[in-house]
Amino acid sequence: MRVCLTVAYDGTNYHGWQFQPNGITIESVLNQALSDLLGEEITVIGASRTDSGVHSLGNVAVFDTNSKIPAEKISYALNQRIPEDIVIQNSREVAADFHPRHVQSKKTYEYRILNRRFPDPTRRKNTYFYHHALDVQNMQKAAKYFMGEHDFKSFCSVHTTVETTVRTIHKLEVSKEKDVICIRITGSGFLYNMVRIIAGTLILAGSGAILPDEIPQILEKRNRGAAGPTAPAKGLTMIGIEFLEEEGQK
Amino acid sequence: MRVCLTVAYDGTNYHGWQFQPNGITIESVLNQALSDLLGEEITVIGASRTDSGVHSLGNVAVFDTNSKIPAEKISYALNQRIPEDIVIQNSREVAADFHPRHVQSKKTYEYRILNRRFPDPTRRKNTYFYHHALDVQNMQKAAKYFMGEHDFKSFCSVHTTVETTVRTIHKLEVSKEKDVICIRITGSGFLYNMVRIIAGTLILAGSGAILPDEIPQILEKRNRGAAGPTAPAKGLTMIGIEFLEEEGQK
Repeated sequence: MRVCLTVAYDGTNYHGWQFQPNGITIESVLNQALSDLLGEEITVIGASRTDSGVHSLGNVAVFDTNSKIPAEKISYALNQRIPEDIVIQNSREVAADFHPRHVQSKKTYEYRILNRRFPDPTRRKNTYFYHHALDVQNMQKAAKYFMGEHDFKSFCSVHTTVETTVRTIHKLEVSKEKDVICIRITGSGFLYNMVRIIAGTLILAGSGAILPDEIPQILEKRNRGAAGPTAPAKGLTMIGIEFLEEEGQK
Repeated sequence: MRVCLTVAYDGTNYHGWQFQPNGITIESVLNQALSDLLGEEITVIGASRTDSGVHSLGNVAVFDTNSKIPAEKISYALNQRIPEDIVIQNSREVAADFHPRHVQSKKTYEYRILNRRFPDPTRRKNTYFYHHALDVQNMQKAAKYFMGEHDFKSFCSVHTTVETTVRTIHKLEVSKEKDVICIRITGSGFLYNMVRIIAGTLILAGSGAILPDEIPQILEKRNRGAAGPTAPAKGLTMIGIEFLEEEGQK
């Protein structure tokens, strides 16, 4: 059977999701623990290959197994075998051909900025501390220009190798609660570093370094140098994925 | 001059506030860093000697120095010399006889319970994960009985050695936002483990193990065994202290 996991993690201590020859990753921890648990070699396929330091509440991974353990029990058994900074939130059986990167989906990410005079040590690992005042209204104005379908070539790492840099953003909200500014973004998919570069550019708009109305020009330039810096990984959390086609759950 | 610091910390990696022969404490880190910075032996006096694993956004400490560094600059210089899990939020000169434990004050603590099906690894260090459903209304009903002046002998560690176990609670609010139940308590002072035992007892009321109306009897018994368990340290944060007499700020 094919089993689908919802995976939450504190990314602080990992070299991202994807297997690497050096450095421990979320994927390698899951492969090892699942192989031990199920007594066969397991290789998970992740929906979102998050970067080093990025967190997750709802990343998704699938794997195939011959095990007779009911799929919904695997979350509990697996949580006993993995470190406390990774927690499986759910496990369920899906159709044998369900692939979390090939099915159309909406992914939601949150970028959180701690905007106050001094850092708060209790929130240092899942917010980006930014000392200067940020104008949330200007960030909201700038955010509107990202909505819909655009070529996001200015908003992806120069190392990206993809067929097209056109993506669709369904939702992009900037809100402030107490001293945390939260950028919440939902899209059909994101290019490498795209959310962090959008966050870095919205911070420029909030600080007054650029005007909100400059966003369309930055998009048009199709040049990474035109956009703002890549905001630090620690502020980013993968919130969840909504699959638009049936998962074929049995 | 006497300098007053507002000290925030993630208590996860410390053996509490107070100096101990074995194990690193917040106090020992501050003493060491201040002595290095100011070139004289410095000993801080803390307002709230928080336990191992307890966090702070606004604990207060004072120390005396012959330094000519302006008091308000000390926070910046000190933050360069201490680990990232301790951050001085403010430094200021106070009257030479200001003692943060002898002056009347109101202290505020927050106890945060993460009430959901599975743990959230990104919040595992500053919330107490509690799996079973909690009835917030029952917790609020129980909370009302703690308000005002009471003998809190049932709500302090049996190891406490104090003249009187009578304390006054000015405010005790239980609120829920998404999956976090927050117990916010303000009082004239707290006995050893008192906030954590009140939290543990409110959790009993929320889970249905006791009725809210049983709180008065538990108080009357003046017996630690009558109250609930001591909730884990990681859920507790010292929010801040309001001094009711003048700090004698110059």
